[in-house]
Amino acid sequence: MSSLHLFPILGVGEIVAGDDLVDICLRALAAQGEQLAVNDLVVVTSKVVSKSEGRVVPCDGSPAEREALVQAESTRVLRRRGPLRITQTRHGFVNANAGIDFSNAPEGTAVLLPVDPDRSARRFRADVRRRTGIEIAVIITDTFGRTWRNGVTDVAIGSAGIQPILDLRGTTDANGRVLDVTEVAIVDEIAGAANLVLAKDGNTPFAVVRGLSPTYFGDGSVGDDIVRPPSGDMFR
Amino acid sequence: MSSLHLFPILGVGEIVAGDDLVDICLRALAAQGEQLAVNDLVVVTSKVVSKSEGRVVPCDGSPAEREALVQAESTRVLRRRGPLRITQTRHGFVNANAGIDFSNAPEGTAVLLPVDPDRSARRFRADVRRRTGIEIAVIITDTFGRTWRNGVTDVAIGSAGIQPILDLRGTTDANGRVLDVTEVAIVDEIAGAANLVLAKDGNTPFAVVRGLSPTYFGDGSVGDDIVRPPSGDMFR
Repeated sequence: MSSLHLFPILGVGEIVAGDDLVDICLRALAAQGEQLAVNDLVVVTSKVVSKSEGRVVPCDGSPAEREALVQAESTRVLRRRGPLRITQTRHGFVNANAGIDFSNAPEGTAVLLPVDPDRSARRFRADVRRRTGIEIAVIITDTFGRTWRNGVTDVAIGSAGIQPILDLRGTTDANGRVLDVTEVAIVDEIAGAANLVLAKDGNTPFAVVRGLSPTYFGDGSVGDDIVRPPSGDMFR
Repeated sequence: MSSLHLFPILGVGEIVAGDDLVDICLRALAAQGEQLAVNDLVVVTSKVVSKSEGRVVPCDGSPAEREALVQAESTRVLRRRGPLRITQTRHGFVNANAGIDFSNAPEGTAVLLPVDPDRSARRFRADVRRRTGIEIAVIITDTFGRTWRNGVTDVAIGSAGIQPILDLRGTTDANGRVLDVTEVAIVDEIAGAANLVLAKDGNTPFAVVRGLSPTYFGDGSVGDDIVRPPSGDMFR
């Protein structure tokens, strides 16, 4: 089992609509004397994906306007408490206020989640391949709260080039017994790991994860593999 | 912002009641030519903590006996589906079957969670300090399912020497605006990260996490800081 190495890509400026994220990422990486290698994984925070894709909308910050935006981005409201809404987004994610960022957005605006984060991840990956010839994997992350546990963690909302779930069914332990825990959400573990190296200055949206087991790379998407259909869920 | 390095400690054999986990961990680490350094963090999977503390109980595997064990370890049942129970444990964790491992346990037994994983973490940390003079942090992990998302991830059930929640309240971003997301559950992000390097052979219970920000180290416990009281919870 190899070791894992994670580092942030520094010196990335403010991102605006139309920015070429892959170009910005590769230039910043080169500026710190690094380059991507096969089986690297690049983590991209959803905020810059949203901004580059123009998912910034006017919002005066009033409760009524916030509520309207959350409703527009949601297909279902699970819980309400004060101004907080726990909703199911059109992607199928369940999180606070449909993942809309009201605070860390340009004045008078709010930042919505990307329309299709898996597609955004696939595009980023394809762009890296086209420019560098290197096959990497990509995870787009956002910050979610959890039931029953305090604090937020970063999770994957989009991915490309990596199996979101590591399927260990049929694997045996050292005693030859079949493992009980068989489906590990590695994209979420990687998303959280990357958050540990991202500076909290709002200008460090990329991290490189190097040394993942080659068996982790493959097909799948967060939408297909991680989002649990309501029918299979006990808390909706 | 520095980079993060994670690696497993290999060559650890089967753990039984009364085993000295720190001695076993340090010997295995030395055998691979490594030693602990200040501000390293050691991740320990709960299974070996439970085994070393004698938390292995007879269980014939019948539904009735499983049900009785889950009830004995729980203070509340949140959901039932077939043989699955989502319960609140005496620690306050909400997880499947009170965290009892029925499958990957010695024949005719089940492995319960440690009685007090934060205490186990503090002991491990104090033992390391006594033997090596080195101040490290410790996280004890277990594998939990999540609401609304498929797959399991490793989370922290005990910790020592690290702040479970990184409190960013008052921190400003690059534009001078106060950050919205302010309480990051770094112990859970670290727990998940470490799981990425642990071989799934049942005999790799330790990982070293090197390069965490020195600001992450400090006081607190999973029980005090991560476990959300039922009164503050919207899904119980």
